[in-house]
Parts: sequence; structure tokens; C-alpha cells
Amino acid sequence: MHASIVVFGTELLRGRVRDSHVQYLSRELGLLGVEVREALVLPDDPALGHEELSRMIERGGVVLVCGGLGPTSDDHGRELLASCAGVPLVFREDVWQALVERYPHLREVPSNRRQAYVPEGFEALPNPAGTAPGLWGRVGETWVAALPGPPVELARVFEDEVAPRIRAISGRASDTGERMYTTYLIPESALEDALAPWEGRLTWATQAQPGRVFLVLSGGDEETIRACVTSLEERFLPVLVFEGEKDLFVLLKEALARRGLTVGFAESCTGGRLSSSLTRVAGSSEIFWGGVVTYSNEAKERFLGVRPETLQTFGAVSRQTVEEMVRGVFDRMPVDVAAAVSGIAGPSGGSPEKPVGTVWVGVGRRGGRSRTFRALLRGDRERIQHKSTLLAGLLTYVLVQEEDWLDRKELADYIENKLT
Amino acid sequence: MHASIVVFGTELLRGRVRDSHVQYLSRELGLLGVEVREALVLPDDPALGHEELSRMIERGGVVLVCGGLGPTSDDHGRELLASCAGVPLVFREDVWQALVERYPHLREVPSNRRQAYVPEGFEALPNPAGTAPGLWGRVGETWVAALPGPPVELARVFEDEVAPRIRAISGRASDTGERMYTTYLIPESALEDALAPWEGRLTWATQAQPGRVFLVLSGGDEETIRACVTSLEERFLPVLVFEGEKDLFVLLKEALARRGLTVGFAESCTGGRLSSSLTRVAGSSEIFWGGVVTYSNEAKERFLGVRPETLQTFGAVSRQTVEEMVRGVFDRMPVDVAAAVSGIAGPSGGSPEKPVGTVWVGVGRRGGRSRTFRALLRGDRERIQHKSTLLAGLLTYVLVQEEDWLDRKELADYIENKLT
Repeated sequence: MHASIVVFGTELLRGRVRDSHVQYLSRELGLLGVEVREALVLPDDPALGHEELSRMIERGGVVLVCGGLGPTSDDHGRELLASCAGVPLVFREDVWQALVERYPHLREVPSNRRQAYVPEGFEALPNPAGTAPGLWGRVGETWVAALPGPPVELARVFEDEVAPRIRAISGRASDTGERMYTTYLIPESALEDALAPWEGRLTWATQAQPGRVFLVLSGGDEETIRACVTSLEERFLPVLVFEGEKDLFVLLKEALARRGLTVGFAESCTGGRLSSSLTRVAGSSEIFWGGVVTYSNEAKERFLGVRPETLQTFGAVSRQTVEEMVRGVFDRMPVDVAAAVSGIAGPSGGSPEKPVGTVWVGVGRRGGRSRTFRALLRGDRERIQHKSTLLAGLLTYVLVQEEDWLDRKELADYIENKLT
Repeated sequence: MHASIVVFGTELLRGRVRDSHVQYLSRELGLLGVEVREALVLPDDPALGHEELSRMIERGGVVLVCGGLGPTSDDHGRELLASCAGVPLVFREDVWQALVERYPHLREVPSNRRQAYVPEGFEALPNPAGTAPGLWGRVGETWVAALPGPPVELARVFEDEVAPRIRAISGRASDTGERMYTTYLIPESALEDALAPWEGRLTWATQAQPGRVFLVLSGGDEETIRACVTSLEERFLPVLVFEGEKDLFVLLKEALARRGLTVGFAESCTGGRLSSSLTRVAGSSEIFWGGVVTYSNEAKERFLGVRPETLQTFGAVSRQTVEEMVRGVFDRMPVDVAAAVSGIAGPSGGSPEKPVGTVWVGVGRRGGRSRTFRALLRGDRERIQHKSTLLAGLLTYVLVQEEDWLDRKELADYIENKLT
């Protein structure tokens, strides 16, 4: 079963408001096993509205109309439905009485009676959160629901009245068998290549953000989905693939909190972004002691005790320097876990030996030895800073969650050679 | 002239993401005098896409296609445009070369070559923020633009490449007497109120981001525009209104660099976001020495020498503490300018005397006295951290650029009582 969504609102096409109905209804319909075929945002223009709504109705399935049910002159929803259905609008005394019982003041403004008109043969759906009732009826083979525009009212009428009716007609369970995964630091194109062999057995959709890709697998049984994910974990790394929609820094905060550990950061090229990413998470004060942004060499010496010789001999972007930065964190901060990042975010500062995008990350546990990793990241300054931050966050998470992984050759190899 | 918007993205119809393109493009097109007739959100389905896109193109005007230009198998944008235009897709060696010059690694994944295919007769529009180029061409009487899906890339390609072309064909000179201004920390609604008296003499459009509003004034002569801006500066503060499209931290970096000054930060509630905002700016190493994220009280004592008595007596969120934080920066860092922030970002940690959103900011120059300001910011944790960061950045900029303003009663009054 499929659905179309039509949203009326001139303001949405003037850039003043951002529509929220499409996202809300798409999610709810997905849970009902109904696939949304398209969503259309239209101005409050009766002619265009009639043309487009008729076209949507011809496509069959369910059509959800949002807005246009209010009492004002540019609320054409009822008229449109009636004209598309080819039936008259009838005044429903029962609907009007129910309305004025709850809102006696409605009597004072005649135009409010508009809200008691219903296309002949349609049901009026009670709106516990407002005045304008919803509408439900059939036009040819297509089911049509009209919902009030205010988000709270729309949600109430949809959940209380429309969802049950859709369940009844679609007769489907509420699980679509979709599984969502979050991957970090895997390029979308590489993920696509890895998924290609599953064509036919599974369907998937990816949604990429810098350094993170959401993957939704569906159309296959549990086993197939599981096998597909395993193949991804083998091709990439299990520590890069998370079940569900996950935020790395929320995971990190929770992993630290569960174990009662605190963390401190030493940042160079990420310039505070690592600390900032963790402190965005509510409750991070529980596990984040503090950090230093040692952007200059002198800052690395003063705040972390990195030795001038180290900086001179190996440079600020080197294994030796991030190792001393990690040590510096433990010397200067009473934390259990430390992470340090130093790299070249560009656009300038690169060299043949250390091109822009070269990043060293070090992580350690107090009393344990620190591990360091080098990556060569691509993209502009923004991308490099962002991916360096994710890499440091991810390695810190791995240290806390599955430390043995830090010594696996595959991890160092992936970061050194495959990560971009 | 009118436009239609087509957004491709299955994830938008599964409820996982909320579309932002329709609002952004509607607003931008409004500024260009172009009216958006309708907006359509479609799944990544070639058949449906072809049918709907053809229909939109038949309606004339300008059709903006968002998304579907990436390298993956569900990116059908190029093919759709070609088939709707009835022309072949041609591999453009020049586009490919330009791409791999910027991103050599694209060579490694064959599917990336997809991004160098262009419908015959179409222009490829450079995408400075990513890999997939935009497209611009004509189908019959209709102009068609294809924009990459990631919001940052979409905005860059639209502003740099598409907007000028639309101006040209809609016959509006690229200088329409429009003047753009950037305001910081003025609520959009307050700005609208202040503009109301100019109704009839000027037309304006605002585009709000958290803490920042872009204002475009047009339809009036220089004098009127100047007078309007002066009235805004009087109602709010000149230091909150910048001519042109300005990024606060670029302004700060340039102001410091011009004077050969260096800066250091001490952050508590902003958790590294202040340092991160400045180090996002290329070349910031020239002026940013370093910073400390003293998230815990102990960190404030160890890294900044804030006295335990001060923390006990007045609390971490107090004038006295931020004053000592500023002093601490000068004691520990060889910088000319210092800024410190301490506040309650929430959701927890508030009290009747110091509710969530209470933020203290201190700024100073070495050898000079530090000035402190208190604000009571509204919103969730994210908003409060963001606005605290902007406030600290703005006050640092004012210190460097027009220090005397820091002693004006209006500034303290605005921050204390009007800022939200």
C-alpha cells in the first residue's frame, strides 16, 4: 500500500516556515507499512490545489491532505475535497453542536460554521486538540484523509483516527522489517560498492553526513540482513558499524559513564572541536574533566610538557608528539582516559612528507601504554577537522569499549591506508 | 517569474530526515523576486522521477532539482535531466580532471566517474564545497538547475552559480539595489518589529540562523536604506549590525591579524566551541595561541589558577570566576587578548538564582582591566552553548575593534536585559 502527502501552506513556499508534516507523517506511515510515494507542498491556491489533488487521488492508495481546514477564507481544504470527490459540502448540525459545546465562543464568529461543513459521504474526525475536525472518505479507489494544519492537532487526529483506519484497510502489521545502521568513517561510495553484491536479496538506502553514513536495510529476512551487516563488518571494521541511529559522542559519554571513567583531551588541529563534540552531550560534565587546545608549539610545551626537542626533531605532527601529548594529559589532568590529536588541516602547512590531511591521534588509559594512529584525510579544512574529530572520538570509544581492537592490525591498516 | 522545487531523497519520505531545501530555496528565490509555485519531494525512483520532473518542466519558469547528483546507484539526477531534456549524458573529461585535481582519491572508486557526466548542452556548475557539480541548462522554455543534496553544497552552488543566472534571465540586474546585512544576537522577531515602520518605503527579507540573522533591504534608494540601518543600530547596537554577509569569527581573525595580536580562550560551558569556532577559520594559527576547556572546577584551579574560595563563595558561574579565568589566561598564556566564558548550558544545573541559560563572559587585554558581562540566554543546551560562543566571540571582536564600546551602558544593558 502506498500514500501521497499534500501540504497546503503559502508560508511554506515563502521560506518563512519549515514544513514538519512530511517528516512526521512519513515516519508514522512507515510504521504502518505504508510507503510514501511523494509529498507535495502547495500554496493556498484553489485552482492549483484542485489540479494537483485530483492527480494525487488518481494515483490511488491513501492521500493525506494537511492544512486548509481552518475557518479563514484561504482555507480551501473542504471545498477541494468536495470538488475532487464530485460531491456537495453539507452542513453537519451534529458536528457544529459538538464544536460549540467545547468552544461556545465559536458561535460569535459566523465564519466558524465553515468548520462544520463536510463533503457528502465523508466522516468528520474529532479533533481533541483544536476546532477544525479532520475528514476521512473515499474517492473512487482512493482513500483520502484531511488533517488540520497545526502540528499538535494533526498528530492527534492522525494517531487517534486516521492510523487505525489505515491499519484496517492495509491489513498489515506495524513492522516494516527495516533495520537502520550508523557507520563512521566509511565513504558512502565504498559502502555502496560493498552492498552491490546484495542487490536483489536486500534493498537499502544510505544517507551520508561528513564522516557518517546512515544505512537502512530492508526487503530481506533477519538472516539476510545479519549476513549483509557481517559482510560489511568484515570488509570494513566492526567498530565502524553501529546498529541503530547512533551519535558517536553520546556512545562515548555513555561508555565512560557506565564504567565511571573520566576523560581529558589534548587538541591541536581539531582546535577544540573534540572537546566541543563531547560537551554537546547533556551530562558530559560527569565524565569530561577538561581539555587543552594547544594550537601553538609553545602551548604544547607549556600545557602538556611536550619537549622542544621532540617538536624540533619530529615536528608537531608526529607519533612522538601525540605520544607526549597523551602523557601530558595524564601528568596534568587527573583523568582515566586521554586522547590527543595533531595534524595539518590546511589549506597551508602541508609538505611532501606531511601533506595537508596528515593527522596523528593518540589514545591511552592511565597506567597503560598509549596507542597512536596516523591517517591521511581528504577534503577541505572543514572536512579534515571534522573527520579528525570523529577519528579521535572513535578511537577513544574503542579504547573504552573494546580495547583489544586497538592492537588489531586491521584497525591500524584501515586508518592508515583505507580511511580518507 | 515562477519556480518549482523538486527534492529527491527516499530518506525524506521515510521520516528519518526533515527537508531543509524547500525553505532555504523558497527564501532565496523570494529575494530574487521569483515566486515558488510548488515543491515536490520524491523518492529516488527513476520512473516516478521522470514523470514528475517532466510535468514540472512543462509548467515553465525555473525548475530547481535538489539531490540525486552523488556517485551512488540511487543518484539518478543526471540521467533524469538528460531523459527529460531528450539528450544523451556525455562524460566531460574537463569536469573529471577538475574533480580529481581537488580530490585525487576519487580515482580509486569507479562509480565516482558518474559525477563527471553532464546532459549534452548543460553547464556543469563548480561545487566548491564538495564533489558533485551542479547542472544548469534549458529544456524547451524552462530553465533547469540541478543542485547537490548536502545543504552546505546546495547553498554554495545556488549562491555562487544559480542565483546570478536566475537574476540574469529574470531580467533583474545583479545589483537590484539590494543591500545585505548580518546581525548577531538580535532575535528575528525583534528585527521584524524594528523594520515595521519602514513598510512601504523599503522591502526586506530576513534569513535567521541561531544567533545570526541575514537581512536584505531593497526597493529603496541609498539614503532610505542607510536611514533604516541607522535606526536599527540605534534601536539595537551598531556593534551587532555588519554590512554584507559576515562571519563573526572571520571578522575576529582578521581584526586580530591586522593588529598583530594573539588571543587565548578559557572556556567552561562552551566546552571548546569558542576555540573551535575560531580555528575553523583558515590561518587562525597566526592569531590563536591556544585555549583551555576548564569544564570542571578543578580544571579551573589547575589550568587557570582560579582560587577555590572564589569558586566556593561565588560559584563557577559568576563575575568573580570569569575575571579570574581571564587573569589566568594572561598568567599562563603569552597572549595579548583573552576571553573567558562560564555558564549553565543545562538541561540540569540551574537554580532559582542562576537559572539554566545564565552565562558570564569576560574579555580583556594584557595590562588592561577585564570587562565582564552577564546574559540570560533562552533555548536548549545546543542554543545556549551556541549563543554563548557568539557572545564571547562578539565581545572579543568589540574589544579588538572598538574597545570603548565595552564601557557603554547600552552594551551591558542590551546583553543583560534584551539578549535572549
